[in-house]
Amino acid sequence: MKASAPVGVFDSGIGGLTVAHAIGERLPLERIHYFGDTAHMPYGERSPALVRRYAVRIARHLVDKGCKALVIACNTASANALDAVREEVGDRVPVLDVVAPVVARAVASGAERIGVVGTRATITSGLYGQLLRQAFAAGGGNSDTHDVREFATPLLAPLIEEGWHTNDIIEPIIRGYLERAGFAAGDLDALILGCTHYPLASASFSKVLGGGTHMLDAPEAVAEALAEVLRNHGLASEDQRGEHRFEVSDLTPSFSASAELFFGTGLKLQPFDLWAD
Amino acid sequence: MKASAPVGVFDSGIGGLTVAHAIGERLPLERIHYFGDTAHMPYGERSPALVRRYAVRIARHLVDKGCKALVIACNTASANALDAVREEVGDRVPVLDVVAPVVARAVASGAERIGVVGTRATITSGLYGQLLRQAFAAGGGNSDTHDVREFATPLLAPLIEEGWHTNDIIEPIIRGYLERAGFAAGDLDALILGCTHYPLASASFSKVLGGGTHMLDAPEAVAEALAEVLRNHGLASEDQRGEHRFEVSDLTPSFSASAELFFGTGLKLQPFDLWAD
Repeated sequence: MKASAPVGVFDSGIGGLTVAHAIGERLPLERIHYFGDTAHMPYGERSPALVRRYAVRIARHLVDKGCKALVIACNTASANALDAVREEVGDRVPVLDVVAPVVARAVASGAERIGVVGTRATITSGLYGQLLRQAFAAGGGNSDTHDVREFATPLLAPLIEEGWHTNDIIEPIIRGYLERAGFAAGDLDALILGCTHYPLASASFSKVLGGGTHMLDAPEAVAEALAEVLRNHGLASEDQRGEHRFEVSDLTPSFSASAELFFGTGLKLQPFDLWAD
Repeated sequence: MKASAPVGVFDSGIGGLTVAHAIGERLPLERIHYFGDTAHMPYGERSPALVRRYAVRIARHLVDKGCKALVIACNTASANALDAVREEVGDRVPVLDVVAPVVARAVASGAERIGVVGTRATITSGLYGQLLRQAFAAGGGNSDTHDVREFATPLLAPLIEEGWHTNDIIEPIIRGYLERAGFAAGDLDALILGCTHYPLASASFSKVLGGGTHMLDAPEAVAEALAEVLRNHGLASEDQRGEHRFEVSDLTPSFSASAELFFGTGLKLQPFDLWAD
């Protein structure tokens, strides 16, 4: 595998572009081959078996196209399909997910009362809680002082895609979810934003939860983890060649418009029909 | 084709169960074979080509399983795939959609200023506006007195699926959409709820728009249109046999839970993997 090959990044849709953006910032010499499964988005409400089927097929596509490493830039797929993806392509390329790097940061931050928000499929998997509790136990932490609570917030991703994360509408919804979960402002040291869309709504979470709650999200943590993996495998690119590539399995004007929300300007989505009969 | 055969009803997910419910009420002797494409929901954000591909495949499945008539219980599929479905199975069974019956009711109501809300794909198709304007022109109506305005409200379906259509959160969102579309309370004689989910939020629409706006939705109108088609084709069932069948292409506990929102109690969703490789 050559260092000049692109890094494959995939998501159920376009939210994973927040991760691709952070990779571009942290590793400007790397070329990205992004795949957004817009024909099947959102994964967050699907069954684990279906998420695995989709993720494995996309991983094969990206590796077949020559990617030197894979980033599963989707919490739902990370939580439900990481093992299956590694089984499929792990002998050919290193595979990173968006959960482990954020859990490592949460533990390193010293936070004791940690909330996790994400899609229904991410939260149902229980993976964040499991990894956090393992890390606390491994660190000899007293489980009495640690409190991890996960809750699903399925409306937030569509709301953010609609561009409504900066107005007054998202706050009562976040507050509604927190009330359902039994939280009040000040109850949490840290909140893990367990969906690639949520960093865009970070300010609203802070406003509802109070300034004392530290927000933890994936993009920067994952880019840092990728830098380390590429270095360790001798796969870091040494000069910039060619352009990023952004493929989606279904293309509509509305995806093109909201892609810039997640990545910034100047990106062109291309249709790629991975699921043709 | 036998009158004792079931009626096929399909939707992108479980919202079409509102239509299935109305059919069950209006035609209690008919047996329903429902298919909800939960593996691909929501259709509302997909491209027309993809919606057609899915709808045609489902139509073939239902007719192959012996359905005597088909109801496309999804506005997005009705607006983008009716012709393609009729081309596929129209020589074998009558095919009904959810748009035409509601347009007929809107015209019959005498409303002159009509709003239409629906998913992005439904509204982008422009079908409601086109059919309404044709009907007004055919009726010799003065186009100056008629005003049809369509606008996409993509957040409402996920919000309703979350069970939040009866609380305070949906109202500011409906109001936000109306403001975007340039409407004020009192501006409309009628509002077509162009998505099978929206009847559940009918009261909130009324509250925002004012009592003078008449709400028009599909379920009852479609059940009535189906009764007429079955009668005209000599296909009306004369006695009740067997049970309804509710298939979904992906099954999760959350679908099972919210199915009752749309249909009422006592229904059991069954997984049917129409999209296996």
